[in-house]
Amino acid sequence: MNVKNFIKENNLEHVFSKGSFGIEKEGLRTKLDGKLALTKHPKTVGSRQHHPYIQTDFSESQLELVTPPTLSLKEQHRWLVALHDVAHRNLLEDEFIWPFSMPNILPDEDTIPIIDVEDKKEIHYREKLAEKYGKRKQMISGIHFNFSFAPDFTEKLSQLNIDHREKLDFLFLKLSRNFIRYQWLITYLYGASPVCHPSFDNGESQGVYTRSIRNSPIGYHNTFSDRVSYASVQSYVEDIESFVKEGQLIEEREYYGSARLRGKGKAARGLLNEGVKYVEFRSFDNNPFDSLGFTIEQSQFVHLFLLTMLWIEQNSTDDEMDLGMKKNELTAGENPFEPSQFKEEGLLLLNEMIETAKELGLDSSYIRSVEEAIAAFEEPERTLAAQVVKAVEKEGSYMALGSKLGQAYKQESYEKPFLLRGFEQMEMSTQLLLFDALQLGIEVDVLDEQDQFLKLTHDKQVEYVKNGNMTSKDTYISHWIMANKTVTKKILADEGYTIPGGEEFVSIENALDHYPLIKDKAIVVKPKSTNYGIGISIFKNPPKEEGYREALEIAFKEDSEVLVEEFIEGTEYRFFVVNGRTEAVLLREPANVVGDGERTVAELIKAKNTHPYRGEKHRAPLEKIQMGQIESLMLKEQNRTFESVLEKGEKVFLRENSNISTGGDSVDVTDSMHESYKRIAEEMAEVLGVNVTGIDLIVPDMTKESTPTEPGYTVIEANFNPAMHMHAYVHKGKGRRLTRKVLDMLYPTIQLS
Amino acid sequence: MNVKNFIKENNLEHVFSKGSFGIEKEGLRTKLDGKLALTKHPKTVGSRQHHPYIQTDFSESQLELVTPPTLSLKEQHRWLVALHDVAHRNLLEDEFIWPFSMPNILPDEDTIPIIDVEDKKEIHYREKLAEKYGKRKQMISGIHFNFSFAPDFTEKLSQLNIDHREKLDFLFLKLSRNFIRYQWLITYLYGASPVCHPSFDNGESQGVYTRSIRNSPIGYHNTFSDRVSYASVQSYVEDIESFVKEGQLIEEREYYGSARLRGKGKAARGLLNEGVKYVEFRSFDNNPFDSLGFTIEQSQFVHLFLLTMLWIEQNSTDDEMDLGMKKNELTAGENPFEPSQFKEEGLLLLNEMIETAKELGLDSSYIRSVEEAIAAFEEPERTLAAQVVKAVEKEGSYMALGSKLGQAYKQESYEKPFLLRGFEQMEMSTQLLLFDALQLGIEVDVLDEQDQFLKLTHDKQVEYVKNGNMTSKDTYISHWIMANKTVTKKILADEGYTIPGGEEFVSIENALDHYPLIKDKAIVVKPKSTNYGIGISIFKNPPKEEGYREALEIAFKEDSEVLVEEFIEGTEYRFFVVNGRTEAVLLREPANVVGDGERTVAELIKAKNTHPYRGEKHRAPLEKIQMGQIESLMLKEQNRTFESVLEKGEKVFLRENSNISTGGDSVDVTDSMHESYKRIAEEMAEVLGVNVTGIDLIVPDMTKESTPTEPGYTVIEANFNPAMHMHAYVHKGKGRRLTRKVLDMLYPTIQLS
Repeated sequence: MNVKNFIKENNLEHVFSKGSFGIEKEGLRTKLDGKLALTKHPKTVGSRQHHPYIQTDFSESQLELVTPPTLSLKEQHRWLVALHDVAHRNLLEDEFIWPFSMPNILPDEDTIPIIDVEDKKEIHYREKLAEKYGKRKQMISGIHFNFSFAPDFTEKLSQLNIDHREKLDFLFLKLSRNFIRYQWLITYLYGASPVCHPSFDNGESQGVYTRSIRNSPIGYHNTFSDRVSYASVQSYVEDIESFVKEGQLIEEREYYGSARLRGKGKAARGLLNEGVKYVEFRSFDNNPFDSLGFTIEQSQFVHLFLLTMLWIEQNSTDDEMDLGMKKNELTAGENPFEPSQFKEEGLLLLNEMIETAKELGLDSSYIRSVEEAIAAFEEPERTLAAQVVKAVEKEGSYMALGSKLGQAYKQESYEKPFLLRGFEQMEMSTQLLLFDALQLGIEVDVLDEQDQFLKLTHDKQVEYVKNGNMTSKDTYISHWIMANKTVTKKILADEGYTIPGGEEFVSIENALDHYPLIKDKAIVVKPKSTNYGIGISIFKNPPKEEGYREALEIAFKEDSEVLVEEFIEGTEYRFFVVNGRTEAVLLREPANVVGDGERTVAELIKAKNTHPYRGEKHRAPLEKIQMGQIESLMLKEQNRTFESVLEKGEKVFLRENSNISTGGDSVDVTDSMHESYKRIAEEMAEVLGVNVTGIDLIVPDMTKESTPTEPGYTVIEANFNPAMHMHAYVHKGKGRRLTRKVLDMLYPTIQLS
Repeated sequence: MNVKNFIKENNLEHVFSKGSFGIEKEGLRTKLDGKLALTKHPKTVGSRQHHPYIQTDFSESQLELVTPPTLSLKEQHRWLVALHDVAHRNLLEDEFIWPFSMPNILPDEDTIPIIDVEDKKEIHYREKLAEKYGKRKQMISGIHFNFSFAPDFTEKLSQLNIDHREKLDFLFLKLSRNFIRYQWLITYLYGASPVCHPSFDNGESQGVYTRSIRNSPIGYHNTFSDRVSYASVQSYVEDIESFVKEGQLIEEREYYGSARLRGKGKAARGLLNEGVKYVEFRSFDNNPFDSLGFTIEQSQFVHLFLLTMLWIEQNSTDDEMDLGMKKNELTAGENPFEPSQFKEEGLLLLNEMIETAKELGLDSSYIRSVEEAIAAFEEPERTLAAQVVKAVEKEGSYMALGSKLGQAYKQESYEKPFLLRGFEQMEMSTQLLLFDALQLGIEVDVLDEQDQFLKLTHDKQVEYVKNGNMTSKDTYISHWIMANKTVTKKILADEGYTIPGGEEFVSIENALDHYPLIKDKAIVVKPKSTNYGIGISIFKNPPKEEGYREALEIAFKEDSEVLVEEFIEGTEYRFFVVNGRTEAVLLREPANVVGDGERTVAELIKAKNTHPYRGEKHRAPLEKIQMGQIESLMLKEQNRTFESVLEKGEKVFLRENSNISTGGDSVDVTDSMHESYKRIAEEMAEVLGVNVTGIDLIVPDMTKESTPTEPGYTVIEANFNPAMHMHAYVHKGKGRRLTRKVLDMLYPTIQLS
């Protein structure tokens, strides 16, 4: 079959060039002095028994990050970014991830720790490997690139009048064969293990640079000399099975071919029943210059390379594959600053790649990545291996460079601990929840990014989560109860809770008629059915009729019904109740600065705004204090300007309202709030039949116990989908990880190992 | 204490004049020939063991409708209207409710059926009553008017520095004492039992008209001559208890005083512990001219009368109460056309009432009701009793009048069977659900009428329902899954269900770039997150770019994300799944008429629109077909006008879209749809984790079984809060009572007796 013609004849170019991708990235945990970390795999990243994303390979210290299959390289990339954030933030303070494929400073062979897991069979397999290859070799890390066709493509195939499974097997085989034939090109360009630490090879390779020690004969290969045939799936499976039978392989998974056919399950035989599902390409070195070990540009180049392996007419024979393996070994051993001995073949192939990209209509970034490669053929110092050598020499040593880079990558993950990189466009609460889910090893599928819609799976239990805490654990009606403030109040009042008095209006005229009854009272005007505090006006002093009318106009913009409630004196606290417990109590203070006897208000604001928790437009847990008209007016009322110097300890407010979104401070008071109020919030949640809610109580004295005769609180409202990020990173007090509590509610049985 | 001064000094006028109200109304079930119905209480109105609203009193045939306590007379009135609708629509075809207090044609004393309930004690009590009074007297029916103060009033009292329970007891006692003293005024005005059928008294009273047989000595009174003292709650309780002890009362409830003090429980002694909660006023005759037996104007007059009983200085002594009872008896015995012998006292009282209304700032309708009463004192023929006599004479007989009125009232309840009168402003589905709940004897509290928010209670189980089927049985997240069409499709596709192909766009430009890929296809353009079919455009033929752009503009008005899906050929059906079962399948046909060879399109439309199910603006299960521009254009495309005469059997469509709201027909196909599709809809509901949903499937051939290889359907969407009324009253086929299925889901244990 001619693939190119087949694709073109059936107009499959678009779906053919999509693809499904995954990356597995290994890296050694390393101490600050560059030595292999001999500590245990962090407990906080969940149990390796089920963790889909964060695993260990041969050694307890060999972290392995595994992205889920994704439908674009961008997706693949962001998953890898996110997993690095999770991994980095769960490392011990004095550990980091080694950025090279070749190991850090290894201890005595005996001291190198094999994985410490419950499954004895897993340990046994590693012990056998250690025996066979030596532990050192097993410590070499790398990148595996998994590729399959997009579901759209297989669906289209299935609609054609052909045996589509056979067709897919054919494509996967051709892909693997040609990849093995031409993989040397990748090693030329992206080989990145030109040096290693003497502890790896007793210093044997010192002073001699090659493109890839890992792809060289002393690298990571099977010990047997026979080849696995890729002539058919049948021959592939039978060869592997017979190697195991004959004892050349301990288990099937020991087969280290640089293109492994993968099915649904782990056993090779499954390929015969269900067909090939994807191919695992294993020859890639970690790129030390990228915090992820592999750039998105590299992925893109590899993708096009794979498409080209299908697009060209050649379908390599087993002998041609042998040649390819040989060329790869030779390339790996070349001096990084010398031209490729296969330059001609390389340039031909690169031109084929450009041709393929054009015929498939791929975007220009693909072609740019090939142009880069062409340049690297002309100037070998542009190859990754050459650059690594230069950087090692510049930094003084392999260890110095690796330590510097690895620690810097870890530091990047700490810069904005409230964000999960890769998913920064999602709401902060969702990012925190995602982080926690990845940490616990819950499978995550972003069903709709804009809509903050996640699918979580663990041990076959599927849970959908929207906006961080809208789940199956709450009922449909509980949402609507909270959305309707009148209904909430009725239900709570019926159960004897203290609510503010008030009336409900359907028109401004209606509400204005009511003015005589409220004209001497402090009141709050608010839309009946909004959340998030929108459209609310507070009159701590009785309103003039004009002000009352304005407040009504604002509220009626949000809703067709408006409540006019009595204003209750006291401080408002947000009680966050999840799964029956008040897990956090927060006080929100209006934007303010405290003087030091020296600086002006403007300077104090500037200084306060430098805090890493303060950002703009909900991209940080706190907002920067503005210096606008409202703040200026507020200062004027206090006979101040932005230029006033405040006395030491003097606190000046810049806003009336306590919203975090206008620069307010979040103060966690969970531990100082009298327990009785927490119980009341929990009871209210129960009465409302809700598992996640933010209950706003006004409590004049939080240290005084609430009693039936002196309740000491008034309930203002119960909020659905209450914000969680503002509790996690607070201006003052202890941060509360409510996203984790939500996950505990959904998956009460998940245990950290 | 001077009540008037107390109220005024504490500014309580507003809350004092509010009140809490209830009505109990008895009426005999009657056969078309006017004879007492000897059939059983209808099973379809729930079990009398728990029914809060529809009961029987002494006799199996004596229906008793009981409104819940309401905070306004309007509320009270609408509940009574609704309960009448429920009662009427559950009667046998040849039965109706007798509109008079005095009975219909009674059979032999022995044949009159005592209630037939499970509780033997209840039956035993009635047997004792029958023994003591004779069954005939027990068949007299009447109105009980329950009054209490508004919760606002009692709350304000509790905030004053007084013993508020004592104060309330004082008020209730004063109210009762003065009511008994002056009740004759009510009997004068509203006495409405001037005649009775000879079967009641062997014809003894024939030819002699009085104001109220029921209030006369041969009416409904206790047999003992001693009085119950209202000097204090203590004396009231002790007197009743001693009458029971001495055997003058069978049980406490036999006390028939026209003002009975009521506490929380049934035992009089409870009054001492918890105080008086309300007073039950019992001297009112059924008003045969009102379908409810009591007009809202009467209620208003009584309310003001009660307020006046509190407002006046007098606090009647037991002797004065005796005088009042005497006067009531004398008034009851007066000739309806003669002036009252207590006219002077009456007019004084009525003027006090006007004074009271003014001082309390009641609205003018209260004063008008008093002016009516003044007129009735001047012209006795304006009294209810006199009007009844005149109507009886005009109609020929008491029986003729009673039959005519009773049957007409029943008929009114059948005119719009899809509405529940009293609640017509609510959504139709909510009205149907309310009807079913009242029928089953589920307690209903309308928490928010505009928001369609109900609280249901049965046997301590509280359920909140919004919009007829948003309940606690569905999860918060299931709503959002259905609200997001992309997410719905992903989840269903993951489970292998057939969905239309499609793409999602975030901008018009984005979607226009996609035009080349769809330009040869039939497509549907729709907003991602709307329900109820809003903003959708269908192109059964490939769209021109301009039309595509317009459709995008329409869809983007509704949502920031828009789906462009392939259009699937076939007929769309709505599968209504509730609680795991497909309970209804509906086909919606665009507005159409079928010719008869004689009439024009316009005439056919007019005729079709006369069907009682067709109305306007969602106030009926089907909408009237419009004769607007769209219909005119649609006819033009078919070379027709409104004036075209259609051939016999010729069907002409007046709309493209099949919405019921634009005059479409609803056709129930539940029984003809192949079971396999119903199972698929049920499975989809399960996959989406939802208990109530309307799943739209396109099925080209509904008689052909769906199989894994030939599914025979495509799922278009799953709707949250699917309409229920359109299934209940259909253009063709069998109506499906889905509201009842929702209640069965919420309360699976409710058994009809």
